[in-house]
Amino acid sequence: MEELTFTNQKIAIIGMGLLGTSLGMALRKRGFEVVCWARREETRLFALEHHAASGAAPTPQLAVKEADITIFCLPIPVIVNLLDELGGDFKPGSVVTDIGSVKGCIVAAGEAAVKRSRAHFVGSHPMAGTEKSGAEAAFPTLYEHAEVLVTPTENSDPAAVTTVVRLWKELGTSVRLMTPSAHDILVAHTSHVSHLLALGLTLSVLGVEGEALKKLRFSGCATGFKDTSRIASSSPAMWREIVEANQKSVLEAIAEFEACFGKIKELISEGRFDEFEALFAKGKALRDSWIEYKNKEHGCNW
Amino acid sequence: MEELTFTNQKIAIIGMGLLGTSLGMALRKRGFEVVCWARREETRLFALEHHAASGAAPTPQLAVKEADITIFCLPIPVIVNLLDELGGDFKPGSVVTDIGSVKGCIVAAGEAAVKRSRAHFVGSHPMAGTEKSGAEAAFPTLYEHAEVLVTPTENSDPAAVTTVVRLWKELGTSVRLMTPSAHDILVAHTSHVSHLLALGLTLSVLGVEGEALKKLRFSGCATGFKDTSRIASSSPAMWREIVEANQKSVLEAIAEFEACFGKIKELISEGRFDEFEALFAKGKALRDSWIEYKNKEHGCNW
Repeated sequence: MEELTFTNQKIAIIGMGLLGTSLGMALRKRGFEVVCWARREETRLFALEHHAASGAAPTPQLAVKEADITIFCLPIPVIVNLLDELGGDFKPGSVVTDIGSVKGCIVAAGEAAVKRSRAHFVGSHPMAGTEKSGAEAAFPTLYEHAEVLVTPTENSDPAAVTTVVRLWKELGTSVRLMTPSAHDILVAHTSHVSHLLALGLTLSVLGVEGEALKKLRFSGCATGFKDTSRIASSSPAMWREIVEANQKSVLEAIAEFEACFGKIKELISEGRFDEFEALFAKGKALRDSWIEYKNKEHGCNW
Repeated sequence: MEELTFTNQKIAIIGMGLLGTSLGMALRKRGFEVVCWARREETRLFALEHHAASGAAPTPQLAVKEADITIFCLPIPVIVNLLDELGGDFKPGSVVTDIGSVKGCIVAAGEAAVKRSRAHFVGSHPMAGTEKSGAEAAFPTLYEHAEVLVTPTENSDPAAVTTVVRLWKELGTSVRLMTPSAHDILVAHTSHVSHLLALGLTLSVLGVEGEALKKLRFSGCATGFKDTSRIASSSPAMWREIVEANQKSVLEAIAEFEACFGKIKELISEGRFDEFEALFAKGKALRDSWIEYKNKEHGCNW
């Protein structure tokens, strides 16, 4: 009888966009059997051709049926709906997780749904991605050095949590555990507000009236603007779903940003430039130490 | 007699930080004779050793004395003071320019100062740089694909303007002409506010009280935050000088950003997510078209 090692586990990936396809590529590279499902047949074929899956199922039911681990890689509302739809179809005892950017609503739906199969749901959120979307933008090292936030609750099966943590660690990520609500507050600050700032900056700098002014602004933007605004090129539908699912924490994080930005504006407006310089030095020190932390703790090379 | 080609001109670079040293490297690669001056002898030696200059002068007076073109690559207040100090020392008929990020105060000082030598001042601002500073961070392709804003006034000598434009074009940049005040308004929007947002974001996300929360925030930041906050790692002293020299336009650009960001916040707070998604789509389209413009018009490969 074949020994049941970790990489013997059969994995189902439901949804083959940037994150699902990159995940499949990384898992296949490490020898996992991966069955994928995507709504469009051409996306499933793309996954097979690009080594993101060893098999493709025509329905999500067939994909999850024999999977030891199922990973949902879809937009938040689609995950919530599909979890409910598939509730009784998971393999008994199997582990179900996801990659959604907001955890409260997904974990609640997941825990309720998988009970019907006697499967176990544990939410996860790999902090990885680019401003691009779709399978064509996928690459197998997307998750390397990423931090993955895994969000067990008091209902979680400890062995299922261990499986999810181990899965992410196999992919070269760091894992941190927290509750779904602590997660949603955290990412509102560390990720969601950044996207809203990038959007606000882009609209304010490039969204001007008049062709001449617009042309001038286009030519006057350089690498600083490029990086600060990068994530404004992200998917509008995805970010609508994230912000909608995390409205309260996002508004709190906006308020915290506005307090800091208001202080900066006050110092400039009142000509208190010594204090402005000291505040800039504080910000620089914080960011420099964060880069150092990522390089040291996560093996990044930034 | 040797033909007087453009690259026969003797160039003086005053100040050998990131911008001055990179400029020297680029000019030397193209065969220009470059005399540099930096306050510290070891910086001048670094420039000679790293092919950023063919000669070094112990005083700025000696560096500019025989230069056909002098380029000031120093902090804004140092440029203003040194222009005044050197006013009578430039070669008669020579062209003097600079790389300062704010043009109003520098051009006024430059035009007044170089009159004493019958030289010509024309301000310029290459939109190039990184969040790093110092000669050690220099590299010869820093200016490639950059946009350089050249700021003649009604007092400018047309031949001197042509020389400055030609010099920047030799380095593979695009050049755009505008008045110093139009420049200062433009860069407040396209560059200065981005730096203040990056600073505000960094302070708000990482500048929290309590080691546990700080650690959590450090771990919850990923590539989105990394890029959005990158320029918060810039030089605090430099940004103090820029903002101080451009206070009025910076405050106007902040107000324009706040109007856009306020709209985003309003839509989220009122749960108007269809409109939020449409606004995000508008921002994404603007940024994507800007990237396309840079790739097409400036030969960037972004």
